[in-house]
Amino acid sequence: MRFTDEQHLDGDVRERGFTLGEIPGILWTPTSTPAPLILLGHPGGLGKMYPRLAARARQAATAGYATATIELPGSGDRPRSATAERARADLHRALADGQPVGEIVERLVLPLVETAVPEWRATLDALLELPEIGGPVGYSGGVLAIGTRLAAVEPRISAAALFAGSFVPQSTFEEARRVTIPLLVLLQWDDEGNDRQQALELFDAFGSKEKTLHANMGGHTGVPRFEGDDVNRFFARHLK
Amino acid sequence: MRFTDEQHLDGDVRERGFTLGEIPGILWTPTSTPAPLILLGHPGGLGKMYPRLAARARQAATAGYATATIELPGSGDRPRSATAERARADLHRALADGQPVGEIVERLVLPLVETAVPEWRATLDALLELPEIGGPVGYSGGVLAIGTRLAAVEPRISAAALFAGSFVPQSTFEEARRVTIPLLVLLQWDDEGNDRQQALELFDAFGSKEKTLHANMGGHTGVPRFEGDDVNRFFARHLK
Repeated sequence: MRFTDEQHLDGDVRERGFTLGEIPGILWTPTSTPAPLILLGHPGGLGKMYPRLAARARQAATAGYATATIELPGSGDRPRSATAERARADLHRALADGQPVGEIVERLVLPLVETAVPEWRATLDALLELPEIGGPVGYSGGVLAIGTRLAAVEPRISAAALFAGSFVPQSTFEEARRVTIPLLVLLQWDDEGNDRQQALELFDAFGSKEKTLHANMGGHTGVPRFEGDDVNRFFARHLK
Repeated sequence: MRFTDEQHLDGDVRERGFTLGEIPGILWTPTSTPAPLILLGHPGGLGKMYPRLAARARQAATAGYATATIELPGSGDRPRSATAERARADLHRALADGQPVGEIVERLVLPLVETAVPEWRATLDALLELPEIGGPVGYSGGVLAIGTRLAAVEPRISAAALFAGSFVPQSTFEEARRVTIPLLVLLQWDDEGNDRQQALELFDAFGSKEKTLHANMGGHTGVPRFEGDDVNRFFARHLK
């Protein structure tokens, strides 16, 4: 892990860009360290997502958490995958035409999960070696299939707040049954580009004894601000 | 409204029993008055429900709210209705046998709503004349069909936290579409005596632009303690 730049945000949050091999990422740390860590998931495109990620990082820092994120494979400045680009175009076309998307989701999301999850785990290895980062670790955000796989396979993640805002391949349901950590699942009820029924079935499938679903209105990008506080309170209960 | 007894609970909460005509009720007020008011709905049987109601009243008083509840028609010390008792027995039998319950729910819940809603509104008239009670007013708890009708027809109720833990008649869906106040709907995901799908469809039907669903595990009576805090925060946002 190599730090590439540094700045300070309002509220005394230290923001550092980094690269891990070819993967760019950002680490935010609060004043008081070592801090527990929340990994911030997102749909890809760090530049475009930056304002929302930085807002979440600031909100988390206020509650004492360090946060970190990395670019997804094939997004932002990372090399594109022709197969993924084709699948993404097919998905948009199928959704616009009201066609079934299951087979396209398998082609688009499964390879993404296969690549992204080991990258997140390698990032976690590197972050946990920094003196500013203590345990425990949470995961917060999307992509739903990535967050679910991480929650199922990465024992250092103690709790996850998953954004149910993207399609998942069938195998995610089997992985969900193996998840046992506490979960908060956020669903935008009127998210027109999402499959609400699939999200509810996935919530049902999670093996966790303590799981909570929060559904709100406001469309895909309209998660109410108070949910940020709820996510912080969820982590305050579970990242001790 | 006639007060019948008075005691003080831990945390400086004043508890007074009252009767409104034939209807027994309880009013809890915090130290600082006039206070905003939350009406506490419940499934009937004030004696049996008292510990949980008093706990909710104490939690609400800590946040500055007065709370009040009344006995449901046909419950506790109020006269039984032979028709309702027969419908309740039919419902339990149908549920145990895995039979459809729609027609029984109409027989059981509709008359309850027809009687209980005017009683709640008369109680509200009386409570709002007390110097300890200011506005605004919220409704919190069950019975789902009663809370929905109240939210639809009683303009003095500004926000409602509804417990989706009971069957509703078909007409409740039409009433839900007319509801426009902010809602927090609590659903116990693994409540075996409830119809989860019906609860999700009712959440979908509510006309409110701001509506939030919180689903948790723990069975019908296992609403997590942190949801009490969430309910208080919900009312803090909307009862100004």
